[in-house]
Amino acid sequence: MTSHPIQRYSYGAQHLARSPVSLHELEDLKRAVGFGPQSEHDLHELWGLLADRTDQLVAAWIDRILPFVLPTFTGPDGVADQRYLRAVLSRFIKWIEDTCTRRYDQAWLDYQHEIALRHHRAKKNQTDTVESAAIVPFRYLPITTFVLIDTLVPFLTQAGVDRVVAERLADAWTRSLTIQLALWSQPYVVKGDW
Amino acid sequence: MTSHPIQRYSYGAQHLARSPVSLHELEDLKRAVGFGPQSEHDLHELWGLLADRTDQLVAAWIDRILPFVLPTFTGPDGVADQRYLRAVLSRFIKWIEDTCTRRYDQAWLDYQHEIALRHHRAKKNQTDTVESAAIVPFRYLPITTFVLIDTLVPFLTQAGVDRVVAERLADAWTRSLTIQLALWSQPYVVKGDW
Repeated sequence: MTSHPIQRYSYGAQHLARSPVSLHELEDLKRAVGFGPQSEHDLHELWGLLADRTDQLVAAWIDRILPFVLPTFTGPDGVADQRYLRAVLSRFIKWIEDTCTRRYDQAWLDYQHEIALRHHRAKKNQTDTVESAAIVPFRYLPITTFVLIDTLVPFLTQAGVDRVVAERLADAWTRSLTIQLALWSQPYVVKGDW
Repeated sequence: MTSHPIQRYSYGAQHLARSPVSLHELEDLKRAVGFGPQSEHDLHELWGLLADRTDQLVAAWIDRILPFVLPTFTGPDGVADQRYLRAVLSRFIKWIEDTCTRRYDQAWLDYQHEIALRHHRAKKNQTDTVESAAIVPFRYLPITTFVLIDTLVPFLTQAGVDRVVAERLADAWTRSLTIQLALWSQPYVVKGDW
């Protein structure tokens, strides 16, 4: 876990745009994917296991996603912008905690929208005032989500967690990330087609 | 397995549009998700287990996806169009076989594009000349893909397949469906943002 303040992390901030997705639509997505009270309970339990291991978990992800994620951090000189990378990484770690511990209410929905905008050309680079790739291409969102899901069970079992427990917790994680993938897609999708 | 001919199944047909996704981009997606020769081998092995059980597998899926999929089959009278449902179901079963046994080449890429168009307002309803919902809303694509992934291991183990084998085969299935989800998103995403 990082002890530095998290730059440009603005969960719950008044200046955030309201999500174009309604709480009613969120409830529908939760129902469709089978995300309920047990999933919320499991995510809290998961955070108890991850809280002291976020740096290692992120390291395990980075190994697999960096080849296609790195170009989205490249500056005008063709080299990855280290300041930008560090800022995003610290928010990425906080996002793990938020996924596990936040109530999925209007503030959560609004911050999912903010995350989506920060990947889309609508807001990418603005948040960290950097010059870099204009957008994270949409096609890498399902791929990245797949890696964030696929890595969890091996990571937990290697940390000594019982496999049956690891699979139960990963199941809740998978359902949450599927909902988040649907939410993150909103700014990318043609108006009216989401 | 159905013994009827598959209506409006046009894999490899000359009249199909060429996919806007290049083979180079497909190779990039395969690399990003870790889909390689072993995955192809595993999918062929999976088809060996599924070929005689597709009706049961589809039944297992339908139970979970019908609540949010059914509205996309509704006719002007507010009732699900049974002819339309049957036609799509027979192609859906053929899609399982194609996913497991086809080479992922230009013809496969073009048919993924055709599948995407048939879900999008670009071509939905035209294929089967029906009057129904104008589009499958994008947000249900990740959810449906999740269900098609999540159902496989329990289905295989209940059919007597060893759990380690089931998980290896489901892994290849998951990687393929993640690529396909990325491909199906293309007509939905704003031009230039895919």
